[in-house]
Amino acid sequence: MTKTNPGRFFEDYQIGQVIRHAVPRTVAEGERALYHALYPARHALYSSDEFAASCGLESSPIDDLAAFHIVFGKTVPDISLNAVANLGYGEGRWLRPVWPGDTLRAESQVIGLKQNSSGKSGVVWVRTRGLNQMDEPVLEYVRWVMVHKRDPEAPAPETVVPDLAAAVPAAELQLPEDLNFSDYDFDLAGEKHRLADYELGEKIDHVDGVTLEEAEHMLATRLWQNTAKVHFDATHRPDGRRLIYGGHIISLARSLSFNGLANAQMIVGLNSGAHANPAFAGDTVRAWSEVLDKAETDAPGVGAIRLRLVATKGDSSRFSLKGEDGKYLPDVLLDLDYWALMPL
Amino acid sequence: MTKTNPGRFFEDYQIGQVIRHAVPRTVAEGERALYHALYPARHALYSSDEFAASCGLESSPIDDLAAFHIVFGKTVPDISLNAVANLGYGEGRWLRPVWPGDTLRAESQVIGLKQNSSGKSGVVWVRTRGLNQMDEPVLEYVRWVMVHKRDPEAPAPETVVPDLAAAVPAAELQLPEDLNFSDYDFDLAGEKHRLADYELGEKIDHVDGVTLEEAEHMLATRLWQNTAKVHFDATHRPDGRRLIYGGHIISLARSLSFNGLANAQMIVGLNSGAHANPAFAGDTVRAWSEVLDKAETDAPGVGAIRLRLVATKGDSSRFSLKGEDGKYLPDVLLDLDYWALMPL
Amino acid sequence: MTKTNPGRFFEDYQIGQVIRHAVPRTVAEGERALYHALYPARHALYSSDEFAASCGLESSPIDDLAAFHIVFGKTVPDISLNAVANLGYGEGRWLRPVWPGDTLRAESQVIGLKQNSSGKSGVVWVRTRGLNQMDEPVLEYVRWVMVHKRDPEAPAPETVVPDLAAAVPAAELQLPEDLNFSDYDFDLAGEKHRLADYELGEKIDHVDGVTLEEAEHMLATRLWQNTAKVHFDATHRPDGRRLIYGGHIISLARSLSFNGLANAQMIVGLNSGAHANPAFAGDTVRAWSEVLDKAETDAPGVGAIRLRLVATKGDSSRFSLKGEDGKYLPDVLLDLDYWALMPL
Repeated sequence: MTKTNPGRFFEDYQIGQVIRHAVPRTVAEGERALYHALYPARHALYSSDEFAASCGLESSPIDDLAAFHIVFGKTVPDISLNAVANLGYGEGRWLRPVWPGDTLRAESQVIGLKQNSSGKSGVVWVRTRGLNQMDEPVLEYVRWVMVHKRDPEAPAPETVVPDLAAAVPAAELQLPEDLNFSDYDFDLAGEKHRLADYELGEKIDHVDGVTLEEAEHMLATRLWQNTAKVHFDATHRPDGRRLIYGGHIISLARSLSFNGLANAQMIVGLNSGAHANPAFAGDTVRAWSEVLDKAETDAPGVGAIRLRLVATKGDSSRFSLKGEDGKYLPDVLLDLDYWALMPL
Repeated sequence: MTKTNPGRFFEDYQIGQVIRHAVPRTVAEGERALYHALYPARHALYSSDEFAASCGLESSPIDDLAAFHIVFGKTVPDISLNAVANLGYGEGRWLRPVWPGDTLRAESQVIGLKQNSSGKSGVVWVRTRGLNQMDEPVLEYVRWVMVHKRDPEAPAPETVVPDLAAAVPAAELQLPEDLNFSDYDFDLAGEKHRLADYELGEKIDHVDGVTLEEAEHMLATRLWQNTAKVHFDATHRPDGRRLIYGGHIISLARSLSFNGLANAQMIVGLNSGAHANPAFAGDTVRAWSEVLDKAETDAPGVGAIRLRLVATKGDSSRFSLKGEDGKYLPDVLLDLDYWALMPL
Repeated sequence: MTKTNPGRFFEDYQIGQVIRHAVPRTVAEGERALYHALYPARHALYSSDEFAASCGLESSPIDDLAAFHIVFGKTVPDISLNAVANLGYGEGRWLRPVWPGDTLRAESQVIGLKQNSSGKSGVVWVRTRGLNQMDEPVLEYVRWVMVHKRDPEAPAPETVVPDLAAAVPAAELQLPEDLNFSDYDFDLAGEKHRLADYELGEKIDHVDGVTLEEAEHMLATRLWQNTAKVHFDATHRPDGRRLIYGGHIISLARSLSFNGLANAQMIVGLNSGAHANPAFAGDTVRAWSEVLDKAETDAPGVGAIRLRLVATKGDSSRFSLKGEDGKYLPDVLLDLDYWALMPL
C-alpha cells in the first residue's frame, strides 16, 4: 500500500540471503574536502597526493573511514531502520583504496539469526561488502544488530550464531598494491615515532578535544547518505535531542588520534567496536589509544599496529574504560579495536 | 555616490529590458558533495556516475535544484534586493543537464509590470535563463516579486501582466539527450515503483523529518551566492531570527521525497510554487506529495510525473494544505508543482 | 616520553632556524566549493573558470585567502601552540596562484627573537613560505607571536628585531603571469567601479552583516588543518566559549567587501594586520574599507589598490576604529592592510 520504506523486520531475514543495497555513490575531491572540514583529519597520506605518491600510491585515497561510512550508510535502510541496537562489528578488512572518481555500492549477506527469549526481537548478523565500479571489493565487515519483529507470533528461525574471529590475524590484512614506506618523510607526516617506538600496552592520551555541534554531525551523516531518523529529527526523542551517528564519533576520535599516532596512516582492519554510550551536541569528545599488538608485513618498510581507540566525553588522560562491574563507564562513547599501517 | 549595490526599485524596470546578472560560477564535484551534505539527497542518477551512465548520460549531472539555486542566486542583487515578497514561479523548464566543470551565468528579461494601488510598490515579472559556458540555456523560469518604489510619486508604468501557463504542457518538457530508462536498475535506485504504480490523486507521506539549523541553511544559501541580508544577519529582524531561503526548503522537501518517490529522478518542469510561510531554525520539516498528472515522453522507458510537493513543519501524514478560507495553513512552508522523469 | 606534540617554547627557537611544517595538502574543487559555502565570496575571478580565462589565467585559482589559511594552519603546531598572542603580520606577498590539484606545504625561518622583561615569555618573528609541489613559492609573510618559555630561568637569547617594511612597495608586488584586465567584463564582475573611481582616503561601508555560528567557524578552521585547541573545545575557556580563528574573520570581511569592491579581484600583498578583539559565535560581523594607496602595474589594464579592511561587530557605517587613547575600540575585530589588483 504505502510507497515509503517500512524497513525490514526480524522475520524478513533468512540465512544466506543477499541484499543488494540501494543508491550507488561516486566519491571525489568534494567528499575529501568535506572530510577535512568535518574532522581534524591530518594523516598526510590522505591529505597530500605528493605524500601518497612518495608511499607508492598513485594519489591520495579517500579516507578509509569515509569509505566505511559510505558503505555503512547504504545498509541502513535495509538493516538497521527498525534496529533496537547496533550491537557490534567484527572481521572488518579494507581490501583496496577508494580513489576520487570511484563509485561505491554495497551488498550484505545474512550470516546469523538468533531470536531473543522475549520473542519480540532478534539479532541479525550480516557480512557487508563495499564494491567499486569494477565490482572489486573495497572493504568488508560483519555487523550485528537487534531488530524488532513485525509479528511477535511469527515462528523463530533456526538459531545460527556465526563464529567470528576475535581479531583479524595480521597475516590476513590486505595492503594496497605497491605500498612502500622506505622513503617515508617523518617531518612531513608530523611525528617521528615509528612502529618500533610503540610498546605493547602503551597508552596515549591524544589531548585535544572537540565540542559536538548539531549542524556538523548532521552534515557528516547526510554526506554518507545515512537516513536513520534519530540523527536528524529533534522531535523523535522525548528529550528533543538528536542522537549522533556512531560513525561520527569514530571519525572524530581517529582524527584526534593524529596527535601521538600521526604515522598510523592507513586503517586496514576493524577487529571489534562498541558504541558504549550515545553522544549528543554539546559533548566535548577526547580520545586515547592503547597499543594492543604489532606485526610485520610483506610491504617494504611497512608494519601493522593494532590499536584500541577510545572516545570519551570525560578526561582522556585517565584512560578510563570500564567499571568494576565490567560495564563501560558513562563517559565512554566508543571502544574500537583496529589495525593500521605504520612505518617500521 | 555610494559604491555598494542599492538594488533596483520598481521604477528601474522596463518591459523588454534584459538584465545580465553578475558573477558567473563554475560548478564541480565540490558543489555535488556539499549538496549531499546539506540535504538527504539520494536520487541515484545524481549520486552515481555509473547509474547515470546506465541511463544514457555521460556522467551524473549536478542536481537540478542546485542548478536552479545557482541561477536564482545570481538574480537576487538585481531582482529581489528590495523585494517585499517573492510572489510566485511559473513556466519553469530544465533544458540541459549541468555537468561538473560547467560555468553558469544568468540573464533576466522583464516581461510584466503592475503598480500596486497604494502607489508605493509594484509587481515585476521576469523570465530568467541560466546559460552555460557555451551560451546554451540550461534552465528558464518566470518569477514575480513585489518591489518597493524608490519614489512613491514616480508615474506608474503601463500595466503588462504576462499570460502564464498554469502548468508546462508535458509535450514541452525538454529531456536530456540520449536519456533511456530501458535498463533502469530499480534495486540500485532504492524503490520498485514505476510510473504505472502511481495513481492520479495519490498522496504520499514521506515520513522523515529534518530539524533546521542556522549553520546549514546559511552554508547552502551562501553556496548559491544568494546575498539576501535576511538569511545571514540575526540583527535584521526585530525578533533576532534569520529567515530561511525558500530554496533551502525546496531542496529539503525534494530530498525527503526520495522515500516514496525514489524513481522521480530528474526535475524537468516547474509549474508553480509558493513559499506559504517562513521557516526558521528549530523547525522540523516534513514533506508529502500528491500525484497531479502523468505523461509519456519520446525517450525509451521514460515517463513524466507531475507532482505537488508540500513541505510542512507539522504532521505530514495529515496532508493538510489550506484552510476553509482557501489560505495556506500556518504549518505549511512550501507548495510546489513540478514535473519529474520516472521509468514507465 | 609523551608522543603527543607539546609545541615549541620560546627557548626552542634560534635565529636562522628553518622549520619544515608537517602535513602537506592537496587542494581541489572541494576546497573551492567549501570556501563559497563558508563565506559570501563572489569575486568573479575565483568563481568562474571562464571569467578567469578572460583575464589571461588558465582557470579560476583557489581563493588567495584559502591559500593563506592552509599555509598558516600548517605553522600552528610549530609556532603558535603555546602562543600567548598573535601579535602581527607583515611583508606578505602572494607569489603565484594556487590551482586546483596543487599540493601545498610550508616552511618558516626564525628571523627575530626578543625575550620579554618578565622573563616568562618572548616574541618570535618567523618568515613563512608556502610552496607548491614544484617547490615554487606561492606566498610568503612574516608573523610574530608571543610564546611562553618552558623554563623561566632559561637564559635570554640575543635580541634580534627584524626591520620590517611598513608596507610592501607596489613595485615588489608579484602579478600572476599573463594577467590581463584589458577585456574585463564589469557586468559579470558585478560592479562598474574601476581603479580611477576610487579616491585616496575614500571609505566604503560594505553594508551587509553575517552572524557567526560555532559550526561554521569550526568547519573553516578544520578545513585549513589549524589545530589550535581554543577554536574547537568549549571546555578550554572558563566562560565556555570557543575563540574564533582570526583568519575566519579575515575571509568573512574580505567577502563582505565585495559589495563596493567587487573589482578588487586578487590579493597580492599583506602589509599588516591586527586581530583587534576576539570574535565569538553570535556576533554579527560587518566590514568597511578605506583606500590607502593606488599604483600602476606592468600588466595590461591592471592596477593595484591598497586597502584598509576593518571588521566590526558594531555599526560599519560609522567607520570607527580607534579611541582617543589610540587603542582599538571594543567593537573592532580586525584591521587589515592589503594590496589587491583592480582594472584600471
